[in-house]
Amino acid sequence: MEVENRYVAVRHHVERYPSEEDFEVKAAAVGWTPGSGEVLVKNLYLSIDPYQLNRMKRHSASHHSVEVIVPGERISAYGAGEVVASACAQYKEGDVVVGVLAWEDYTMFRPDATTLIGKVDDASSSGFPMSYHIGVLGTSGMTAYGGFYEVCKPQRGEKVFVSAASGSVGSLVGQFAKLAGCYVVGCASTQAKVDLLKDKLGFDDAFNYKEEPDLKSALKKYFPDGIDIYFENVGGEMLEAVLANMNAYGRVAVCGAIAEYTDRGRRAAPDLLEVIYKRITLRGFFAFDFVTKFQEYVEIIGDLITEGKLQVVEDISDGLESVPSAFIALFRGENVGKKLVKLA
Amino acid sequence: MEVENRYVAVRHHVERYPSEEDFEVKAAAVGWTPGSGEVLVKNLYLSIDPYQLNRMKRHSASHHSVEVIVPGERISAYGAGEVVASACAQYKEGDVVVGVLAWEDYTMFRPDATTLIGKVDDASSSGFPMSYHIGVLGTSGMTAYGGFYEVCKPQRGEKVFVSAASGSVGSLVGQFAKLAGCYVVGCASTQAKVDLLKDKLGFDDAFNYKEEPDLKSALKKYFPDGIDIYFENVGGEMLEAVLANMNAYGRVAVCGAIAEYTDRGRRAAPDLLEVIYKRITLRGFFAFDFVTKFQEYVEIIGDLITEGKLQVVEDISDGLESVPSAFIALFRGENVGKKLVKLA
Repeated sequence: MEVENRYVAVRHHVERYPSEEDFEVKAAAVGWTPGSGEVLVKNLYLSIDPYQLNRMKRHSASHHSVEVIVPGERISAYGAGEVVASACAQYKEGDVVVGVLAWEDYTMFRPDATTLIGKVDDASSSGFPMSYHIGVLGTSGMTAYGGFYEVCKPQRGEKVFVSAASGSVGSLVGQFAKLAGCYVVGCASTQAKVDLLKDKLGFDDAFNYKEEPDLKSALKKYFPDGIDIYFENVGGEMLEAVLANMNAYGRVAVCGAIAEYTDRGRRAAPDLLEVIYKRITLRGFFAFDFVTKFQEYVEIIGDLITEGKLQVVEDISDGLESVPSAFIALFRGENVGKKLVKLA
Repeated sequence: MEVENRYVAVRHHVERYPSEEDFEVKAAAVGWTPGSGEVLVKNLYLSIDPYQLNRMKRHSASHHSVEVIVPGERISAYGAGEVVASACAQYKEGDVVVGVLAWEDYTMFRPDATTLIGKVDDASSSGFPMSYHIGVLGTSGMTAYGGFYEVCKPQRGEKVFVSAASGSVGSLVGQFAKLAGCYVVGCASTQAKVDLLKDKLGFDDAFNYKEEPDLKSALKKYFPDGIDIYFENVGGEMLEAVLANMNAYGRVAVCGAIAEYTDRGRRAAPDLLEVIYKRITLRGFFAFDFVTKFQEYVEIIGDLITEGKLQVVEDISDGLESVPSAFIALFRGENVGKKLVKLA
């Protein structure tokens, strides 16, 4: 069996803001044979995440943990799809799988101990739209749940600030914070997103950071009693402003720094005196740190959705050729919620 | 009973490098009466610590946790002295006390639940020179021991880097790291200090950071397998260079940032991508966080000294009038080990 596989690649390393010209859609035949031990998946949903930009750089601290993206080659990415051919007993035609696939029409893999592709067939995770399995029930959910509960260790009544709060992870963290009995404020880049946070997602308050000339004063206004927990998604001057408003024993979960991904010269210069005298902890992490708790998280999050306690916000583009524009939109703040591409 | 008390004060807030002109020695009569409930102490050793510069500033994050120093007024400081008059049953004439006294000849206090002044009379802490009680058996020891064991959580074989390694705290941290079975490298500002670290304090290696044009490369050379633990005393570009050389799950104990105390514009701009992708934790703390474990630490450290396993390095100036020059010397890197002033 042979399929024509189209895949998205970068033409060269991407060091700053991505643009359409940085990408190309390439094609190659993929051949599957019955005795190969391989599984061929037709991809249906692909996850579009900001961290991929770090992988596209020639040099980046991200290369310590995730593979660099080689210009012209396939780009691995979380996704969901359907098995169309299998030479492996664990998988059969028609199975829905979710995990590390790629920005392409078809992904072929040979299952082994390190394969991060699982079947969606257990009671706890079925019954939801397929797209949920790569967002709220996938890496975004893991990142938000693990980051908030394991890294931030929230206590009822604590004051929580979330940046990029309408994004895939931020929108979940804010809701988890409310469920944990915290006071939560989010920031975002448009009035529509601010309205979403307050009206649909239940944030206690929200603001458009682009309309605040002085972030330090803005945070003082929204947190007259200080910030106990900061879920960091943006970096830059936001982190500095938060530390200035943080309470003693405050915790910063460093999940992302999107403002710094596109500009290496733009860095937070936190006041270490704030860190010392307020005994602040900053801790970096990412989704796969919680991989052993994945099933537990999926069950808890699935129940919350079923009970109507957790709202899921998705932003879906259509067709493989829309992957570059969907990706670029992340850095323009154009997405609301989890950004996905649905394939034909 | 009335004594003439001389005390050191600042003439105005001190925002950058301190100089002799910023200080003055003032005098005032102190009257003690038998029914007052107060204790009068003749001070014998005063601790000279870099953090006092933050207290001297008009605005500083340190004011969250330690009182601002008011120009013209007494400056509280750790010290040791002898009770010369007591109107309180707990203390009697001749008792040696150690705790929060002040940069002055005599300190009078009224004991209550918040008093941080204790008697040196229990078996575990006696028998050592009096000066030890305000350094290795006082705040420096608490900071080093608590910071290293509680914050850094060292494992045998881990690679530890200590900045300002010949200072009061750094010199102890490096020795604790060796006792914990770690590989430890320190940096300092002169060849004499480097020799001390290697020859007397048992560091595996040490270097003069002033002779290294590129800190990142220097650390790469001293830590070919990366850094697991960084005990941060200086801030600025040193922190950035360390993060670039840090291993996954590295820990930074943020104890001090002396390079930033004298220059508010000089700040570390750590690469948050290093923090995220290596899952690095940075945590601020200070000595009094470990106050409940003080007695336990003092006993452990005392035993180590007795057994010859811990070297104590002190740098003692003479006379109250030398307090300003002793303090200024800290920021010139002129001290070696714990800086103290011995009073007449």
